Parts: sequence; C-alpha cells; structure tokens
Amino acid sequence: MSPFSPTAETSVAAIGESELIARIGRWLGEASPPPPGGMGDDCAVLPRLPGKPLVTVDPVVYGRHFDDSVAPEAAGAKLLKRNLSDIAAMGGTPHTAVLALTLSPDMAVAWLERFIQGLGKACIHFSMTLAGGDVTGAPGQHFGAGLTLIGWAEQAVTRLGGDIGDYVCVTGSLGGSGLGKHAAFAPRLEEGRWLAGRPEVMAMMDVTDGLAKDLPAMLPENACAKIDTATVPLSGEASTLAATSGKPPLEHACCDGEDYELLVMVDGQADIDAFLVFFAAQFDTALTCIGQIAKASSTKHARKLIDAGTGQLIYPGGGYQHFVKESRK
Amino acid sequence: MSPFSPTAETSVAAIGESELIARIGRWLGEASPPPPGGMGDDCAVLPRLPGKPLVTVDPVVYGRHFDDSVAPEAAGAKLLKRNLSDIAAMGGTPHTAVLALTLSPDMAVAWLERFIQGLGKACIHFSMTLAGGDVTGAPGQHFGAGLTLIGWAEQAVTRLGGDIGDYVCVTGSLGGSGLGKHAAFAPRLEEGRWLAGRPEVMAMMDVTDGLAKDLPAMLPENACAKIDTATVPLSGEASTLAATSGKPPLEHACCDGEDYELLVMVDGQADIDAFLVFFAAQFDTALTCIGQIAKASSTKHARKLIDAGTGQLIYPGGGYQHFVKESRK
Repeated sequence: MSPFSPTAETSVAAIGESELIARIGRWLGEASPPPPGGMGDDCAVLPRLPGKPLVTVDPVVYGRHFDDSVAPEAAGAKLLKRNLSDIAAMGGTPHTAVLALTLSPDMAVAWLERFIQGLGKACIHFSMTLAGGDVTGAPGQHFGAGLTLIGWAEQAVTRLGGDIGDYVCVTGSLGGSGLGKHAAFAPRLEEGRWLAGRPEVMAMMDVTDGLAKDLPAMLPENACAKIDTATVPLSGEASTLAATSGKPPLEHACCDGEDYELLVMVDGQADIDAFLVFFAAQFDTALTCIGQIAKASSTKHARKLIDAGTGQLIYPGGGYQHFVKESRK
Repeated sequence: MSPFSPTAETSVAAIGESELIARIGRWLGEASPPPPGGMGDDCAVLPRLPGKPLVTVDPVVYGRHFDDSVAPEAAGAKLLKRNLSDIAAMGGTPHTAVLALTLSPDMAVAWLERFIQGLGKACIHFSMTLAGGDVTGAPGQHFGAGLTLIGWAEQAVTRLGGDIGDYVCVTGSLGGSGLGKHAAFAPRLEEGRWLAGRPEVMAMMDVTDGLAKDLPAMLPENACAKIDTATVPLSGEASTLAATSGKPPLEHACCDGEDYELLVMVDGQADIDAFLVFFAAQFDTALTCIGQIAKASSTKHARKLIDAGTGQLIYPGGGYQHFVKESRK
C-alpha cells in the first residue's frame, strides 16, 4: 500500500494542519494523554523520572526503512520498536516519546491513519505515552517519521565496558531481517533490564547494522572478537535467504542488519555456563555465547571479527551501509 | 548556497556513514560531549534534571523552512532556536538536544559542515549540549533535520491558563519574518523564565504561525480576544513588506508566522501598567499589552480576534498554513 494519494481529496492537503493534528490525537487513542503531559502545548511536561533520563532518536523513512509491502500499522509499530531496542540495550525503561512527521502534501490520510494507529497500539502495548510532536510539510514526495524516545535507568549499561577475555553473547537469532524480521521483531526490554542488573554484564548494544559492523563498535582499540562461527545463532530465515541469495547464512547474520537483538559482553571471570543457565531460567529468549574478546595480534585484526577456528577475518567492512542508493527493503 | 552537491566526490555518499558521524562530532566541537552524555551509544544518558522534564521537537526542512538564500550556519542555528522558543514559552531552561538528520546521498559535505557548525555554536551560546542523534539516508533529493530538545522547569507555564478579563501581552514586535527574522531571532528564554516566576502570568505560548492562528489556541472555548489594533507592536520590516505586498502591516503581523515572540496572558486582577513597568526594568525586550480576553458574544466570535474599536473579526482563519505547495521562505 502506497503512503501517497492519487487524488487531492484523499490527501493531507485536503484537510489542513489543524484538523490533521486533531485526527492524529484521536488515532493515537489512549496513547495520547491530555496536555501538558501530551499533545497540545509548546512542550510536553513529563513527571520527574525515577532514574537518569535516557534519550534516543530513530526514524522510519519511506523507501528506506519500509516500502509498499509493509502494512502501515507495522511501519508505525516498527518506528517505536527500533527506539525501544535502543532503550533495551542500555537496560532502561521507556517512558514517553515525541513524534516528528515530515509529509509531502500528497500523503494519503487513510495510510497515515493506519500508521498512527499502529504506533499508538505499540505505545499502549509497551506501557508508554506519545507526548507530542510536530507535523511539517515537505516538498517533493516524502514521508519521514522521527521518534525521540525518553526513558530512564537506575544504572545504564554502555557499549564500551567490555575488555579482553570477556565473553561475547547475543540474544535470539540473527540474519532474518530480509524476510520480514526488520519490522516483526520484539525489542528485548525485559531481557535488557535483567542483564543490566547483573554484575557480570559489562556492556550491551543492539544489533542494527549487522554483527560485522556493530560488534567492532564495542571493542577496545587493541582488541578483536574471536568468534566460534558454528555457535552464531542463525535464524531459519537466514537459511531461506541463503538458498536464493547464494550467500552463506552467516553473511546474512553478519551483514544484513536490523536484527534488533542484544549483543552482551559478560565478564571473562564469570562462570559463563552458569550465567547462560541462569538467563535461560528467566526467559524464553535464547542467549548464546559466540566467542570472546581477545588481544589483537596486529593492527589488521584490531576491532575486527576473527574466525576462532581458521584465524581469518569475518566479513571485514561488512554490515549495513547508509547513503547507498538502494533501499534496505 | 544549495545543500546538494553537483558531483559525487563532494557528497556524503563519498565518505560513508561512519566517517560522516565522526566528522559531525568534530564539527560540533565542544557542543558534543563524550558518551554516555553525548554521541556514540544506543542512548544518551542525561544527569537527573532539577525540575520536571520538558520535551519539544521541531525540524527544519530544505525548501520549507529555508532555501538557498539562507546561510547553512543560520539554518543550523534556526533549528536550535525554534526549539528554544518552545522551551522559553513554558518558562523552562534548555538542557540538551538530539538530532535526527535525513539526507539524500547527494547532500554536499561542505554545506552540511557549515550547518552543523552553526548548530554547534548556537548550542554553546545557549549553554547546551548535543547529546546524540541519528543519520539516515533518504530517496530523492531531501534534507531534513529534526531536533528534539529536552529542558526542565520547576513550574511550567502552559497555554491554557488564561481566562476572561486577562490581559493579552506580547514581547518584541511582529510581522518581520518575511524579511529575515524567521532565521535571525533571539528565543525569549530569559524573559520566559522571569515571566513564569511571576504570579500574575497565567499562560504563555510562542508565536510561530501568526497572531491570528496562535492567539485563538490560548482562548477558552467561550472567549474571544479583544485587540486594540493600534497597540500591536509592528516591526519596521512589517511596514517594508507592506509597501511591496500591498497588504497592511497588521496582516503580516497576524498571518505570516515565525515571529518567535511570547504571547503572555496576565491576570485581569493585576495592575497591568505596573507589571509592564516592572518587566521593562528587567529587560531591553519590549512587552506590550494589546488587548484583553472577553466573553464571546456569539459562537461566530468564539476563539477569534476582535477589533476592540470596530467589533470586526481580525483575519479569521489567518495564520500560516502547512501542507500548501509553496514554501515559507
């Protein structure tokens, strides 16, 4: 379904800004509280948060993060969930969000209604509010929605706490984004909070650009990640993709991105088997140890993934690249 | 100066995402603190704020909020200042911001550098940090930058505290946005904080879409605003514009928008003259009483501006309209 309207009568230009904002409030339903906690004033006023505030912003742009094959409701839910995944990666709790819509005048009202309803339902599902935002016209044919999510954490876990000897673990399975997981995923909020509370957890990050690009961002400068490739949890979709792409399933796991799983560094002094058993007792989600951080033997290996069996680099330079002309979907 | 590059070599596509993000950090300079308070992790972690958090989001989109006639630095500063104006309208103090950039691959690196430098210098000028953000590719030819600003207030002033009998006041002068004030304005932060601390101040809002559209948003349902049109502070630019547009200067003040002045409702029981003298002793900025809230004599007058001299409606339905094909600049 295209976000754009073939006729002016069914476009946002026909109803104007004030009416559109009023409708967005109705489409959001219970996700939209009255002002000053919600839409309708110069700023939203939030209650004092019980910990340190966390802030993250991620957009969905038509033609980049979704296309006509994605239902509008799923695109709206994806916008919230990709930000929730960032909150999860800090071990945080989401609180509220603000939405910045950039629309060309030919935007279809019916499509936007379903997008906003999908966003609102996802807010309610994750016990959040949508506190306000902005709607702006844009030239050309364009739909972009930026969501800024505000949460909080008593003790936020950063990307950079890992060190040599630490275990590299990952939740769920990787490589399935190309067959729909990029929109149909569950942000690992409860897992992230539990992990953040464990003294063995040194660092966390969510996998958005692929293991080959995201894991290096967690490594100290002089370190590499030695990966036991046989243990990388590949989704069934990665194998299905591999059958048509001609690439190994591992390449989809390392390079496609949008897995929205958590990469977790666990203290090398910890009993990793006991830790994984403890996690498994709390959650249905898998947590798998796929390797360890090691000292890089040369600058060529620094901040790279190394196959622990062969010593070869694993997809160096791989991972999702922005600013290429092709879209992700 | 166009934001887009005629050659691929000088575009963002040539340097890629990782390098672009690293450069943005350098261009921001001291406005960009190290993580976790700044760029580089899944979320920015903020310190606990001394009051209730305030959140607002406003973008600048090329072809809508600025064009080639606006220097990139001024466009970057405008992005921050229009959000600061929202914080000012609540009587708040700005703390930090996150930036969401949506760029087509042909975006010129040199233009973006100057835009980000303008934003960074404005952050430093207003004692703020830029805590992080997101850079996303977009199809077509597009530049949009959304800024979410987080501030705080001990006692936030909303739009809706005004009632019948209250005085309608406005800071500065109106109607000059068409001659450059839309980018070259000073957000009324100090004035807003001082006003928020006065018991006589019942409500505040900033003028972004014009007096004719913004003032009605502050009125109770059964009320109108009786305006002494001779007292409306018109900028010199409004008269200059009027000489070529053929419209009265008052129409530019009521309908053009982007004045970024504060509309202030002052308790009808207060000594308004003494209040204005008190304000004038604190600030160089003018504060002018332009009328009073009155009971609407009919539904036709409800939430409208009425000329106190003639009883006629003042530009009903006027003010800046979004989703029209022409751009503001």
